[in-house]
Amino acid sequence: MSEKIRGLLDRIRAFMESDVYALEQETSPKSFFSILPELEQKRMKVKEMGLWTPQVPEAWGGLGLSLAEFGQISEVLGRSPYGLFIFNCNAPDAGNIEVLISQGTEEQQERFLRPLLAGAIRSCFSMTEPEHAGSNPVEMSTTAVEVGDEYMINGHKWFTTAADGAAFAIVMAVTDPLAESPYARASQIIVPTDTPGFQRVRNISVMGEEGEGWMSHGEIVYENCRVPKSNLLGDQGAGFAVAQERLATGRIHHCMRWIGICERAFEMMCERAVTRRIGSAAPLATKQTIQNWIAESRADIDASRLMVLDTARKIDEAGPEAARTEISVIKFFVARVLDTVLDRSLQTHGALGMTDDILLSFWVRHERGSRIYDGPDEVHKSRVARRVLREYGLRL
Amino acid sequence: MSEKIRGLLDRIRAFMESDVYALEQETSPKSFFSILPELEQKRMKVKEMGLWTPQVPEAWGGLGLSLAEFGQISEVLGRSPYGLFIFNCNAPDAGNIEVLISQGTEEQQERFLRPLLAGAIRSCFSMTEPEHAGSNPVEMSTTAVEVGDEYMINGHKWFTTAADGAAFAIVMAVTDPLAESPYARASQIIVPTDTPGFQRVRNISVMGEEGEGWMSHGEIVYENCRVPKSNLLGDQGAGFAVAQERLATGRIHHCMRWIGICERAFEMMCERAVTRRIGSAAPLATKQTIQNWIAESRADIDASRLMVLDTARKIDEAGPEAARTEISVIKFFVARVLDTVLDRSLQTHGALGMTDDILLSFWVRHERGSRIYDGPDEVHKSRVARRVLREYGLRL
Amino acid sequence: MSEKIRGLLDRIRAFMESDVYALEQETSPKSFFSILPELEQKRMKVKEMGLWTPQVPEAWGGLGLSLAEFGQISEVLGRSPYGLFIFNCNAPDAGNIEVLISQGTEEQQERFLRPLLAGAIRSCFSMTEPEHAGSNPVEMSTTAVEVGDEYMINGHKWFTTAADGAAFAIVMAVTDPLAESPYARASQIIVPTDTPGFQRVRNISVMGEEGEGWMSHGEIVYENCRVPKSNLLGDQGAGFAVAQERLATGRIHHCMRWIGICERAFEMMCERAVTRRIGSAAPLATKQTIQNWIAESRADIDASRLMVLDTARKIDEAGPEAARTEISVIKFFVARVLDTVLDRSLQTHGALGMTDDILLSFWVRHERGSRIYDGPDEVHKSRVARRVLREYGLRL
Amino acid sequence: MSEKIRGLLDRIRAFMESDVYALEQETSPKSFFSILPELEQKRMKVKEMGLWTPQVPEAWGGLGLSLAEFGQISEVLGRSPYGLFIFNCNAPDAGNIEVLISQGTEEQQERFLRPLLAGAIRSCFSMTEPEHAGSNPVEMSTTAVEVGDEYMINGHKWFTTAADGAAFAIVMAVTDPLAESPYARASQIIVPTDTPGFQRVRNISVMGEEGEGWMSHGEIVYENCRVPKSNLLGDQGAGFAVAQERLATGRIHHCMRWIGICERAFEMMCERAVTRRIGSAAPLATKQTIQNWIAESRADIDASRLMVLDTARKIDEAGPEAARTEISVIKFFVARVLDTVLDRSLQTHGALGMTDDILLSFWVRHERGSRIYDGPDEVHKSRVARRVLREYGLRL
Repeated sequence: MSEKIRGLLDRIRAFMESDVYALEQETSPKSFFSILPELEQKRMKVKEMGLWTPQVPEAWGGLGLSLAEFGQISEVLGRSPYGLFIFNCNAPDAGNIEVLISQGTEEQQERFLRPLLAGAIRSCFSMTEPEHAGSNPVEMSTTAVEVGDEYMINGHKWFTTAADGAAFAIVMAVTDPLAESPYARASQIIVPTDTPGFQRVRNISVMGEEGEGWMSHGEIVYENCRVPKSNLLGDQGAGFAVAQERLATGRIHHCMRWIGICERAFEMMCERAVTRRIGSAAPLATKQTIQNWIAESRADIDASRLMVLDTARKIDEAGPEAARTEISVIKFFVARVLDTVLDRSLQTHGALGMTDDILLSFWVRHERGSRIYDGPDEVHKSRVARRVLREYGLRL
Repeated sequence: MSEKIRGLLDRIRAFMESDVYALEQETSPKSFFSILPELEQKRMKVKEMGLWTPQVPEAWGGLGLSLAEFGQISEVLGRSPYGLFIFNCNAPDAGNIEVLISQGTEEQQERFLRPLLAGAIRSCFSMTEPEHAGSNPVEMSTTAVEVGDEYMINGHKWFTTAADGAAFAIVMAVTDPLAESPYARASQIIVPTDTPGFQRVRNISVMGEEGEGWMSHGEIVYENCRVPKSNLLGDQGAGFAVAQERLATGRIHHCMRWIGICERAFEMMCERAVTRRIGSAAPLATKQTIQNWIAESRADIDASRLMVLDTARKIDEAGPEAARTEISVIKFFVARVLDTVLDRSLQTHGALGMTDDILLSFWVRHERGSRIYDGPDEVHKSRVARRVLREYGLRL
Repeated sequence: MSEKIRGLLDRIRAFMESDVYALEQETSPKSFFSILPELEQKRMKVKEMGLWTPQVPEAWGGLGLSLAEFGQISEVLGRSPYGLFIFNCNAPDAGNIEVLISQGTEEQQERFLRPLLAGAIRSCFSMTEPEHAGSNPVEMSTTAVEVGDEYMINGHKWFTTAADGAAFAIVMAVTDPLAESPYARASQIIVPTDTPGFQRVRNISVMGEEGEGWMSHGEIVYENCRVPKSNLLGDQGAGFAVAQERLATGRIHHCMRWIGICERAFEMMCERAVTRRIGSAAPLATKQTIQNWIAESRADIDASRLMVLDTARKIDEAGPEAARTEISVIKFFVARVLDTVLDRSLQTHGALGMTDDILLSFWVRHERGSRIYDGPDEVHKSRVARRVLREYGLRL
Repeated sequence: MSEKIRGLLDRIRAFMESDVYALEQETSPKSFFSILPELEQKRMKVKEMGLWTPQVPEAWGGLGLSLAEFGQISEVLGRSPYGLFIFNCNAPDAGNIEVLISQGTEEQQERFLRPLLAGAIRSCFSMTEPEHAGSNPVEMSTTAVEVGDEYMINGHKWFTTAADGAAFAIVMAVTDPLAESPYARASQIIVPTDTPGFQRVRNISVMGEEGEGWMSHGEIVYENCRVPKSNLLGDQGAGFAVAQERLATGRIHHCMRWIGICERAFEMMCERAVTRRIGSAAPLATKQTIQNWIAESRADIDASRLMVLDTARKIDEAGPEAARTEISVIKFFVARVLDTVLDRSLQTHGALGMTDDILLSFWVRHERGSRIYDGPDEVHKSRVARRVLREYGLRL
């Protein structure tokens, strides 16, 4: 670890402790908008500290970090539900920023990227459809038909995260239904949310909460929704290639964020174990079952971090294609660890763990999705196996 | 299985299908009160059908069933979050009814039991305290001091389920702090909720929801709360003995209800597996991982039912003391199965499983408590081991 | 449980304790033949006690028990590696006896069944082939071609259990390769082991031991091996139907035997836990991890027994076809429990568990096969899922 | 990874493929001595290649590698049961060599270390006692009493690995029973195996095999066994400190060896999955359960390697004390992975996996000990928890 990243991590850790954790009493199920002014203040402070949007290249105002370096920051920020938002590197904005930097036209960058980088607007990514398995991206019903110099979009999406209040969506839609390869049929198109025909039906109630703002998942209907062709992001038909691009980076961000959550849940478990008395004198920590959970969690979290950072290094050195297997491996490995560590920590807290008085319930509910989104773990396992088996001469 | 119980089960199953499942769209996180009129209609209908409060003896208006027989009804009712309430056999009312029948004075039965049996009022049970491990019931801070012909109660309770709207609470409080046996120090006392000094602080937000009415968990402060000594339930100092009494029955009720939930989640998993397409043609059910989950769930649920009914039969034949080990075994065995089956079913539903559009999220969130309440699974495992090891000459 | 079976179980338990357990120092890897005289003495004693071949109908000299009744005996006998042999109900003789009673001609019964029932000879069952997955019985290379009034058998079998010293084999071979249904191509044929062309290549070294006699697994080559057509067992082409017949009974026998092993391993674990000291005073049983293992094993074993006996009762009442799902369920459920309980018991014994000074190593090694033979657990899970999914309208 | 270690690994891998794997048909349960001449030839060849005893410093004829570097070699050698022996770095010789280099007097090094380094003799390490839990090393009955200028040793040891044919044992015995600290009571003493009173009672039959030579575990009785005081290794009373020294290195060696076994079992599983047909056409690898096992094993093995090498680097940089937690973590983490990967590979092989025709059974049987020796996993988990909890202010 370089001096540079070590220094950065120290500063960010200090800021999390001084400024962010105190906000957590506001997580759930209270209103996002009630806390927004405070979050904006923190974002201002982060800008002043020169730590804003740390994930992007220096040319775009970021810190010019490698993926392995930013990954370590992502872990620290992930320790609070507010961390990544306060530093302007939360999903889906971070991915949208990445794609706009890499694929955006100058006009698109001026209109959509700049304000996103400045934190003046928010955005969303509209890919998943209720009627199709997210794990099979070639199945997609949403279409974008060329009408004059416009695309007319029709379709039904959901889990368009943070659509509530977003300025624009990047929409995945079929533009070339007859293309031979199913991977060459869809395109990514930028759709301002005030475009006629963009209808946010609702914030989906997820695990007991509809949420608000960036803490929500939108259901969207596109009905004859027209945008100029200049809103095409990347080449027509290159929707999957572009989506693939953001995937590798996003995986590292997510996994390191999950590890941040794990560490926090682990600390809560240990704190609880030493302070909760069972009977007159003995703390919970004297119980061997609790000790087993602590030891196994320590092992699982450390293994996760080593794997994710090793994968990040491989991507930094040789690109995402060279790390395809690892990128799938960390998905299911870390998602399972997250699930398990949260479960152990909740159980250690007993009834308190069930309440929204502490953060665990929030994570248990909302991070359950980690085993599902970006392809369920089961799909990634099959992918890993298929890649391995190719070395044994079998193509499945 | 007798003809009688077979007929009953058929009628109740039919009623669940015709009248109850349709209500489920109202589960969460919508208001309990908005649906209350419909629930009351259903309760009326159940009374007319002669199926009301089926768990109590015929002398008290019930069906006079054995525990093993009612257990099977509890499974059917447990298939919906509304089932047990509609039949007036939900917790904690069912337990309070049982204790009032067995321990209540004539006056208590007249004033508290009759309207409870009639479904005119609701009640709650106030035992768990935030500052003490629920698994160690001899640790309790709430006191009831004799002042003249009254008890003056002071203390802090939480997870007083259904306190919101309840007419009375049965409170566990220390009346005899100097009794030699720690198990002879507490008593159960009936406290009408309109008694001065009974303060419902809040409905605790649990897994993202504060809930309402019987679907809530209250935090209660007792501050110089006075009730006449005639509100003592059973003997003074017999609080644990009385609590123990309701435990065995309650365990069977709970476990069979969990099995009902399991069966429902299992059916949803199978339905999803045959209807959800992955790719152009193949349903999800063609995936061996899903097949494994179906087979393992089938095995786990069947094993659970056989164990719980076997335990119920033992209690019916020889009393709860003779089935002490089994009563602990089914707690951790079935709670784990419930957790696992719900997890598999949710995962099979993908993103939809995360939403409140279907019931799974409700159960995943609220039934997570099954591994905690009535003593965490870990405590029951140690208890079982200790009982087993006595046969090998070791007293732990 | 009837008085009859209760009395039988008491007598058999007493005999196991007085006569059988003491033989166990001779299990492994010592010679089977060195202990054979003692085993023969015990068999004689069992005959004198009127308990010989208890699984067969009274007409054939057995005790005329239902499957659920004999299952309970199988558990008690399974507690020792010698139990079933001493009572003449061990595999594969028990299965061969069952099939010969049901399918054998009078001549076959006279020549092969009578001496088997008398314990004068042993037999083996030759089905599994090294080149084909045992889980897919329609894949089979061994052929039996009609030549005059003989069958000429050619093929390669292995895991022909107890071939060493057996008087005859029942061989599964393809007689009707062109039959439309793949299930109508094979037949079962009785082959005396002294028939020219029957070559026992070796006792396969399994988990470190070649074994001897009935404690061995033979590799057999059939080379132009000719037997009279009168040696056909059941109809030609009915090989699978006949094999199916013995399967249900065999499953109950095996599963109950496994439960017997579980109980024994459980007892050893408890004994070890109370006697082994860690440090100056505390026995191993004070460790919560050990307590967890004891409690979970108690639960798992009890669940297993309830499931297997429930399945046996279903077979007794409605025949094996009605219990097809359950017969698959108990296979993978109980095999997994066996594996887990043995593993926990071994771990509790530490280094001693690794040695052949106690029985655990023998079972851990040889019962590992329980998850494989009669169809690997994975195959049974898929079968159960397929049967379940039919109720949801899907045929896989 | 340096060029140096990369080159070494390539050469060793090539040698394993050209010279070592072919020997494996001789593993089990055939005689060690029958293959000894071949092994000696291979050892000669390794010496000629300049790869002999690679783990020791250059001054002692080794390759002067860091622990992290040798760890990678240990993985490659661990891929065959013969690898480490052929390179003269197998346990317990490797540990004895390490201690003799660090603690041995010049005389001891001349007499015991030199021939050990040369591969002219073998040695053993005699610590574990049948009557005491190996996890609690302060419990020990073997004594060494000073009689004149000799130690007279009495005691009972077992699992003195490779005692059969060893030239000397390093014995752990209590020399200072009255020392205040229980960790200051024992000493390590060198005992030539031809010393009167050194009695090798037997090679313990372990998992079905008594073994021979270095593939055996001895039970030893020390009866008035006298050796000169100059055979004391390190200071008197420093037995634990000296044992601790070899532990860290040994842990890395073992864990990397286990990873080598995992990789080999993984390769066998993949080979089997692509070659074994189920039914007419589809290979086993089309089954998603098999794919899950492949993917999960890939993840588990990669996580293991990253953790062990990370631990080795910490030891290289800051010494074993700084890596105490990690040294315990990798014990239980990698031992569990080894167990699981072997189990999956065996299951994938079906009946063949049960036989001694392939290596899996050998590893499944003998590496089951990995979860037990050097402290059972359960003990290491408690140790890790205790170290973690110290940071939370609790000393257990």
